[in-house]
Amino acid sequence: MAATTDRQSQVEDELVRTVLASFDSTPDPRLKQLMQALVRHLHAFLREVRLTEAEWQQAIDFLTATGHITTGNRQEFILLSDVLGASMQTINLNHEAAADVTEATVVGPFFVDGSPEIPLGGDMAFGAPGEPCWVEGSVTDPDGNPVPGARLEVWEADEDGLYDVQYGDGHTAGRAHLYTDDQGSYSFWGLTPTPYPIPHDGPVGRLLDSTGRSPMRASHLHFMAVAPGLRTLVTHIFVEGDQLLDSDAVFGVKESLVKQFERQAAGIPTPDGRDLSGRSWSRVRFDIVLRPQSSPLRSA
Amino acid sequence: MAATTDRQSQVEDELVRTVLASFDSTPDPRLKQLMQALVRHLHAFLREVRLTEAEWQQAIDFLTATGHITTGNRQEFILLSDVLGASMQTINLNHEAAADVTEATVVGPFFVDGSPEIPLGGDMAFGAPGEPCWVEGSVTDPDGNPVPGARLEVWEADEDGLYDVQYGDGHTAGRAHLYTDDQGSYSFWGLTPTPYPIPHDGPVGRLLDSTGRSPMRASHLHFMAVAPGLRTLVTHIFVEGDQLLDSDAVFGVKESLVKQFERQAAGIPTPDGRDLSGRSWSRVRFDIVLRPQSSPLRSA
Repeated sequence: MAATTDRQSQVEDELVRTVLASFDSTPDPRLKQLMQALVRHLHAFLREVRLTEAEWQQAIDFLTATGHITTGNRQEFILLSDVLGASMQTINLNHEAAADVTEATVVGPFFVDGSPEIPLGGDMAFGAPGEPCWVEGSVTDPDGNPVPGARLEVWEADEDGLYDVQYGDGHTAGRAHLYTDDQGSYSFWGLTPTPYPIPHDGPVGRLLDSTGRSPMRASHLHFMAVAPGLRTLVTHIFVEGDQLLDSDAVFGVKESLVKQFERQAAGIPTPDGRDLSGRSWSRVRFDIVLRPQSSPLRSA
Repeated sequence: MAATTDRQSQVEDELVRTVLASFDSTPDPRLKQLMQALVRHLHAFLREVRLTEAEWQQAIDFLTATGHITTGNRQEFILLSDVLGASMQTINLNHEAAADVTEATVVGPFFVDGSPEIPLGGDMAFGAPGEPCWVEGSVTDPDGNPVPGARLEVWEADEDGLYDVQYGDGHTAGRAHLYTDDQGSYSFWGLTPTPYPIPHDGPVGRLLDSTGRSPMRASHLHFMAVAPGLRTLVTHIFVEGDQLLDSDAVFGVKESLVKQFERQAAGIPTPDGRDLSGRSWSRVRFDIVLRPQSSPLRSA
């Protein structure tokens, strides 16, 4: 980097001051704080790297392409936020680390409202291909009190790495919701999670490619837990032993969310007596602890 | 802001380290530098403001809307860069301040290739409405040597604040190119510049509105000067006395670029004897000093 002269530094400083001052009259104090912080960090970045005009143009072109590929079904800006770790950092900021509650992770782009309800022990795969997986656990508060009637949304990719919304034919599979019983317990049949790439045929995929990064996500099963008086939790569970745990494309893995999926050979009896027609299966336990709604996360 | 616990800080730090490390294998060292600096500054911003999940969603929605309004004729990401001062800071970084050369400013979104050529003393307005303005000056190197045959591109808005590309009918007006003569001198007829708003019916306009900022640009006339062996200069001249000099929406004003436009009452003879049919006119002088091509700006 060329050493900058005093005069040059003054010119750059003066511009930052002028841009900051332009937001001084912002009526909403939080918006003013956000915009002025954004300006400070943005200009610090530009000055540190001494961005060239050609690089600036590349950035404009990248954002334009990202905007143009984004549709109702394809959110490339969320992918961009994900691969820069910004989505995960925002989760961290809003779900402060605490030893006594289940950790949160990214929601991802594949959750959709209106999943079908299944009974306890029901099958959320709805025919999606993959190895059956028995999932069971409990929902409690931090004091260990069971939470009956908690609503659990669960969704996952099939063994080909596709969510139902990617099938393109509108049919629902690999997603459902269910409710915990009087003891706060739940169980359902899903699929043993398998790894898959985030959509990588767009600008974000090209960014990953040119930086030597993989688009693969570690194998996981999504959960959203909702219960009155408790903070809604969006999280995943990951598969112990998965080779991708240390290189998840969206940085979603947390150690506490890595679970042992016990592989069961074909013929081993299932917990509910279901006949799997000679297929292998797996089982996992996930006990969820929800934070009280009133728990302060940030003072506004 | 809530005080963050040691454990919370560790979680946030660890994520930043992990994201930085994900770019360690980037083959191109400059891209690696850019991405890692971007990650550091982006996460510093998120952590400083403790971004909420709702604010993150607003940011995603803002970028999506910015992408969707952007077309070949409407570049909302450039506008966004402009109103955050990022465009002007990039200009500053690449055209280091020096006492002996003409300063650069933003190119703006309205330059297009293929302008018509006019002779020295010709009229670049091509019928665009506005008060005629006689523009003259010279192009030299920093040692004062004249630069004959320098190509000057000039473009500006009409008195209604519109560039020809905004007319919507495809006709060219208010833009041209010409060449300096053997003594490095030039002259042409243009229009006395008037203030106008940047396009403000999109996301960037709403941002300006919600932060109490004006979309108005200070009155100006665009120049691009190209000559062999000298660095291409993109700049404007501004009108001394313009009320908007201190609040230009894109931070493009530099004191050295503010020029005296001398108002001439109707009937005062024009420099080239042109008959203005009883209209008032103005005149301005702009002497351009170009930096040698080899002048180091940054070591890559």
